[in-house]
Amino acid sequence: MKGRFIAFEGGEGAGKSTQVRLLADVLRTRGVEVDVTREPGGTPGAEAIRSLLLDPPGKGWGAKAEALLFAAARADHVAERIRPAIAAGTWVICDRFVDSSRAYQGGAGGLGDEAITALHAFGSDNLRPDLTILLEADEDKVSRRLAERDGEASDAIGGRGPEYHREVAASFRRLAEADPEVFAIIDGNGDPNEVHSRVLKAIASLIPEST
Amino acid sequence: MKGRFIAFEGGEGAGKSTQVRLLADVLRTRGVEVDVTREPGGTPGAEAIRSLLLDPPGKGWGAKAEALLFAAARADHVAERIRPAIAAGTWVICDRFVDSSRAYQGGAGGLGDEAITALHAFGSDNLRPDLTILLEADEDKVSRRLAERDGEASDAIGGRGPEYHREVAASFRRLAEADPEVFAIIDGNGDPNEVHSRVLKAIASLIPEST
Repeated sequence: MKGRFIAFEGGEGAGKSTQVRLLADVLRTRGVEVDVTREPGGTPGAEAIRSLLLDPPGKGWGAKAEALLFAAARADHVAERIRPAIAAGTWVICDRFVDSSRAYQGGAGGLGDEAITALHAFGSDNLRPDLTILLEADEDKVSRRLAERDGEASDAIGGRGPEYHREVAASFRRLAEADPEVFAIIDGNGDPNEVHSRVLKAIASLIPEST
Repeated sequence: MKGRFIAFEGGEGAGKSTQVRLLADVLRTRGVEVDVTREPGGTPGAEAIRSLLLDPPGKGWGAKAEALLFAAARADHVAERIRPAIAAGTWVICDRFVDSSRAYQGGAGGLGDEAITALHAFGSDNLRPDLTILLEADEDKVSRRLAERDGEASDAIGGRGPEYHREVAASFRRLAEADPEVFAIIDGNGDPNEVHSRVLKAIASLIPEST
């Protein structure tokens, strides 16, 4: 039996990595084999591209070079890790996937959705998650969470201004509303365990009963 | 006045870098401002991508990830160096450009020409050289030249088998024959100065008289 592919999306500090972990824990207690991964990254090649993206060697990437690098990293990740895992019956839970490219480079970066989806069709044969969880959190809550990440200097993308990140959030919302069969929009405010309950409810139809 | 953009193409060991240097020298004696550059590379960002391409961190890139990385490097190179130089009246002489992606990833790599030119249209607004010099050298001559490159271990692309490189050469020839206005096919066999004379003849109409 093929595994499922779940992606978590949202802006910086929306709580994605916490929710990824909580969901993986629940699935494992129900006997599901889970591979937790992230983008950009997830393979040695894609992690090397991640370093170039988040800490550019020059004065920073233009929007198009950035979109091409994300597509290259994703092509490697999909071919080397995600597709083989799904084929082997493993569930893949990914912290960010193609909808991040659509919201960041396509929306906030101004490249448009068509260009990003064309790159994804080329690089990854248009692989889409079975379900994409969009975590939305209030801007002041996000600012608090980001401030709590002591010592983690913000990277080349996370460090862009509030206008950019507002446009990212608006783009995520537009993508999710346009495709309600594939997206679940989850309120990411409140205690992580409360948010986790909302996530479980959203994916109830996919999750096997406990064994 | 805008500068000219000349690319040298050909397989490994065809004599490109020697001919790039000889042409740049002649142009400079005629008072032309010349920027000599190469692909993949030519900017700090693109040189970092070059390292990933020629010495992959994982077990090697798939054809699609490779094509996306080349397109990303080229996008940075074109935006940050080639277009500004041309606009400033400088001649750009580039050791490899988009036709290498067409011959290697598109032809020998099996991705097809349409996919590669689409990536180039997206990443670099389809910038094309004023003239592309295709250097062709006999296979035994190339093998001798490559053997003389002491200590330079062959990279992840140059180190592919003879079948791959034969397909690269055949692809270059097809591209050049299909577009004779843009390509000059130059016999790269013989003394470098003889080859240089052939190059000068091919670009005579572009070169300014000595001043």
